[in-house]
Amino acid sequence: MSIGTLYFIPVTLGGDHISHVLPVDVISITHSLDTFIVENEKTARHFLAAIRHPKAIRDIQFKTLNTHTPDKELPSLLAELVAGKHVGMMSEAGCPGIADPGATLAWLAHQKGIRVAPLVGPSSILLGLMGSGLNGQRFTFLGYLPSDKSARIQQLREIEKRANSMNETQIFIETPYRNQHMLEDILANCNGNTKLSIACNVSLPEEFIMTKTIFQWKQKPLPDLHKKPTVFLLLA
Amino acid sequence: MSIGTLYFIPVTLGGDHISHVLPVDVISITHSLDTFIVENEKTARHFLAAIRHPKAIRDIQFKTLNTHTPDKELPSLLAELVAGKHVGMMSEAGCPGIADPGATLAWLAHQKGIRVAPLVGPSSILLGLMGSGLNGQRFTFLGYLPSDKSARIQQLREIEKRANSMNETQIFIETPYRNQHMLEDILANCNGNTKLSIACNVSLPEEFIMTKTIFQWKQKPLPDLHKKPTVFLLLA
Repeated sequence: MSIGTLYFIPVTLGGDHISHVLPVDVISITHSLDTFIVENEKTARHFLAAIRHPKAIRDIQFKTLNTHTPDKELPSLLAELVAGKHVGMMSEAGCPGIADPGATLAWLAHQKGIRVAPLVGPSSILLGLMGSGLNGQRFTFLGYLPSDKSARIQQLREIEKRANSMNETQIFIETPYRNQHMLEDILANCNGNTKLSIACNVSLPEEFIMTKTIFQWKQKPLPDLHKKPTVFLLLA
Repeated sequence: MSIGTLYFIPVTLGGDHISHVLPVDVISITHSLDTFIVENEKTARHFLAAIRHPKAIRDIQFKTLNTHTPDKELPSLLAELVAGKHVGMMSEAGCPGIADPGATLAWLAHQKGIRVAPLVGPSSILLGLMGSGLNGQRFTFLGYLPSDKSARIQQLREIEKRANSMNETQIFIETPYRNQHMLEDILANCNGNTKLSIACNVSLPEEFIMTKTIFQWKQKPLPDLHKKPTVFLLLA
């Protein structure tokens, strides 16, 4: 008996612009599955409805994997794969395993000889970097910076130093309701020549990707990033 | 008169599996363009034929941007955008601006107020990371390591140290005909517990993504990576 494949399925970053961000084959593969490991069952149901999954939602099996899932529960999530069934993994938005749950599950899958198949879809980190005009030959994604203001400023200075010494684009995110504070801290603490790219609502119709020096950003009114998913990219 | 948009168009990583890796809207947008800035005109022509661009190739305008293009020629590449025309940018394979030319052009576009619109498509770096099971909350892409053996080994040790101290996945590539040497150097110089993911021929039918510890890799015959596009991912 052959073993199943674990598909890592990207989910739209908001809205239902399916044909804009997902290849037809990704939708077909997702249609062929009826068992999903999901970060959030509600958003997963919404996504499957948006891509018109042919099965009734009640006939689809969901298992939850999020930051609260203890590692000891992971093997049970893979049991059906071992038994030969193909299973999909979906996070709330974007690509599973990248700034989202899924990596530990994929590692365990590899240990069990289960194939992990990543599918093409939107990643605000990758798209933000593509659109930024900053260095894509060398870059670091740092995740979230500290929420404490003084620790955040301290890290921003280290980030700017590393960006400069390594010519390495530094990419980070913030909880959307704190975006405006993050932007103000960057502008107040980085050098005027440092380049900052703001990638907001990436892949949505209201997408906004703009790159300027800190000096240039300070010349005009700032964009409103409040509660809008945003990726910050910095190169000194 | 309104200004044009500069679309960053991902190209398939090989083969013609268009529907597997490109959303329908990305194909439609590309069909609507007749001016392209390309890393390699021959592969760009092949790609446009593969996605069945409605115009005859002779009626499509190509301008070359590669590592040999002097920076002073970049403004002329943007002239038609300033004049209101939408233009596409394509590298040989994968996403323009990421481990490929395009970033300097995008930066200049931002300086001129030209919108840069990154489109969804395959990136072997992103897909390799998704499929690896290694840390996707924090990662660095380093590009190519030094080709000199002793310098490469020295950098591999630094990479492993950073992976360990920061819990940061280290991602790097090698010229495909040197992949086997890279793999041997990694196995000979990294700790047994360090995790190595090999992502080879990503997004192609013969895709191979496998993650093991260095100790585990050494237990079985090594995969043949010679001349196959491969991404290496390491976490200590």
